[in-house]
Amino acid sequence: MVYVTRKAHFSASHRLYNPKWDDATNDRVFGKCNNPRGHGHNYEVEVTVAGTPPPETGMVIDLKKLADLIESELIELVDHKHLNEDVEFMRGIIPTAENLAIEFWKVLEPKIHEGKLFSLKLFESANNFIEYRGPDAS
Amino acid sequence: MVYVTRKAHFSASHRLYNPKWDDATNDRVFGKCNNPRGHGHNYEVEVTVAGTPPPETGMVIDLKKLADLIESELIELVDHKHLNEDVEFMRGIIPTAENLAIEFWKVLEPKIHEGKLFSLKLFESANNFIEYRGPDAS
Amino acid sequence: MVYVTRKAHFSASHRLYNPKWDDATNDRVFGKCNNPRGHGHNYEVEVTVAGTPPPETGMVIDLKKLADLIESELIELVDHKHLNEDVEFMRGIIPTAENLAIEFWKVLEPKIHEGKLFSLKLFESANNFIEYRGPDAS
Amino acid sequence: MVYVTRKAHFSASHRLYNPKWDDATNDRVFGKCNNPRGHGHNYEVEVTVAGTPPPETGMVIDLKKLADLIESELIELVDHKHLNEDVEFMRGIIPTAENLAIEFWKVLEPKIHEGKLFSLKLFESANNFIEYRGPDAS
Amino acid sequence: MVYVTRKAHFSASHRLYNPKWDDATNDRVFGKCNNPRGHGHNYEVEVTVAGTPPPETGMVIDLKKLADLIESELIELVDHKHLNEDVEFMRGIIPTAENLAIEFWKVLEPKIHEGKLFSLKLFESANNFIEYRGPDAS
Amino acid sequence: MVYVTRKAHFSASHRLYNPKWDDATNDRVFGKCNNPRGHGHNYEVEVTVAGTPPPETGMVIDLKKLADLIESELIELVDHKHLNEDVEFMRGIIPTAENLAIEFWKVLEPKIHEGKLFSLKLFESANNFIEYRGPDAS
Repeated sequence: MVYVTRKAHFSASHRLYNPKWDDATNDRVFGKCNNPRGHGHNYEVEVTVAGTPPPETGMVIDLKKLADLIESELIELVDHKHLNEDVEFMRGIIPTAENLAIEFWKVLEPKIHEGKLFSLKLFESANNFIEYRGPDAS
Repeated sequence: MVYVTRKAHFSASHRLYNPKWDDATNDRVFGKCNNPRGHGHNYEVEVTVAGTPPPETGMVIDLKKLADLIESELIELVDHKHLNEDVEFMRGIIPTAENLAIEFWKVLEPKIHEGKLFSLKLFESANNFIEYRGPDAS
Repeated sequence: MVYVTRKAHFSASHRLYNPKWDDATNDRVFGKCNNPRGHGHNYEVEVTVAGTPPPETGMVIDLKKLADLIESELIELVDHKHLNEDVEFMRGIIPTAENLAIEFWKVLEPKIHEGKLFSLKLFESANNFIEYRGPDAS
Repeated sequence: MVYVTRKAHFSASHRLYNPKWDDATNDRVFGKCNNPRGHGHNYEVEVTVAGTPPPETGMVIDLKKLADLIESELIELVDHKHLNEDVEFMRGIIPTAENLAIEFWKVLEPKIHEGKLFSLKLFESANNFIEYRGPDAS
Repeated sequence: MVYVTRKAHFSASHRLYNPKWDDATNDRVFGKCNNPRGHGHNYEVEVTVAGTPPPETGMVIDLKKLADLIESELIELVDHKHLNEDVEFMRGIIPTAENLAIEFWKVLEPKIHEGKLFSLKLFESANNFIEYRGPDAS
Repeated sequence: MVYVTRKAHFSASHRLYNPKWDDATNDRVFGKCNNPRGHGHNYEVEVTVAGTPPPETGMVIDLKKLADLIESELIELVDHKHLNEDVEFMRGIIPTAENLAIEFWKVLEPKIHEGKLFSLKLFESANNFIEYRGPDAS
């Protein structure tokens, strides 16, 4: 088993708040991330695919294809967008890094046919990141 | 002359558009940076002060004071904000990295009394950055 | 299960030597890390907490609280200190990166009540780092 | 169990192609990586050794010895080389990052006697990397 | 005057040698960079344009256009190539980082019509880089 | 004129204090950098040499020689040392980054015979760095 990782980048804005709560609760829970007009990040995504490289190619997955898939299925939908308002698959979901990683997994996993999606990392800033290994990981 | 640089970070959202123009012109000039609900970045600021370190301290400027100044005068005003709507000193100014650097200079320059503000760099993403050396630089 | 990581930084000095050994043995085992007056590093700590984000917050752990915890329980005790002489919880322990990671775990683990401490990484330099996943990890 | 990682760097050129295939197939599978006169990368290797630090040293493995081993057994053989033509242990193997990681493992694993080789990461560029944990990893 | 910088990346191989010299002289001058079958790097280019942002756009130069220009005029010609053999504008020139920067300048400078090309940086590895400010810089 | 930069790294400890002052003054001026038993950093040095590459080599300076010079004249004297106590050329000088850069210049400048030393940068941490361009720079 070999693990192949491809990184991609996007810039987006978001606001963390729960519409079921009043302002004071949102402020207490989400702090400055609850700024009403939003704030933003340069996000970095790391997509890891696990597999065994066949001897005739020596590659778990064609990295060009993986890069194109990440670009067309994810980056084009979220880059230079407001994650609460512009992204269909985040509708009704609080756009924390945790939830973004979980939803990105749902988008990408069915599209990967060489190897198997193993891990999805999402860096929100230089000091914060999330890893998700799918619903079946222990 | 020794040049001392201190970095700081903030996360903000913005929208590039000129309210005097119609939508088509804004789209042509600013492309996806003109997304109506904004997008965002992790910005990095580098503030460089030039001076001669006196022998009794060996320091051009007290770095703790410089860091506190950058924090209180800049970062607290822009971090987790929407640069078009939440920041008083950017009112009416298109929040490109160029204009942010020029306005940051105006905010910081009069507050620096040890040494002299020499340069202000603003990184908008890993691949784009701006440097401004003040209105008197050739 | 989602893994949330927060980084923090500190600068400290240390000396690697075993007081039970003579100088020649210490030199042979620890080389230049045994310099009697010490040497130092900019350390980077990555604290990873595992958990399931509840739908009403979308967060495994409040990152602000985690950052504050790392700051008050670890960074304030080790930043700008001599690890052999100034840090109570390292008393009598050789301050290798391995031992620092193990002792940091003991300090942090009982304080984390949202999710569970999963991993602690310690970067001693750009080229060396340690990971520890606790006494129960296989 | 503590995991100790040491990084090293090398610069090399390679060409991805399968000599059993015709040019059109090689171009389709390997794209621009099939440039006949080769292209190159600054590679980064991360070697992770797992073990328990004995109390008298606090170290899983002497990092100086590990660094010297990586240098003499790997880096000297591949740095400033053409991986298809100059490296004996890559003879007849397509020099993808996957295959490099697998062959590097075979070279290093038998030489590590303090702790046990746990993982080998190979970064081909800022956006692509491979991890291999050996033939026995699940 | 504001300085706008855009980074780009490419991977290429090269060989440093002077065809007018014998092997021993080439080895003495260029050392392991003279490996006959070449070696390679992940290069990073930083292109800096100086200008004054007009108030109606706030931009010295359209960064998208600058990025496209760097891509079409430089990166497409050198990425995944052998710099001695595949690149027309390097024909007969020893492909040191110094010479690459000088030739890149000649390619880009006449194509930049918003602002003025001010500096070209070329990173050959994490530890080596070159800056060139054109034939007229003092 | 082309500017060639070579980076190097060292790890050292230091204490900022002026022996002519009492403890209270030292604490006020140097804060936690005045910890009596010291603290430390991973320093990064960038040495920039300016010159014109002769056509027969295409190199301003032999980078291998420059790297060896930095190693033998600087790094070996400061790496894994206490800068206040172990380094002859820092004797009696407060080891701020400013003073280190100035003294490093004095050590290196007379030894560089291809091109001319143009700039010396010293990074004390990810967020602080110093640049010095010599006593004759305006």
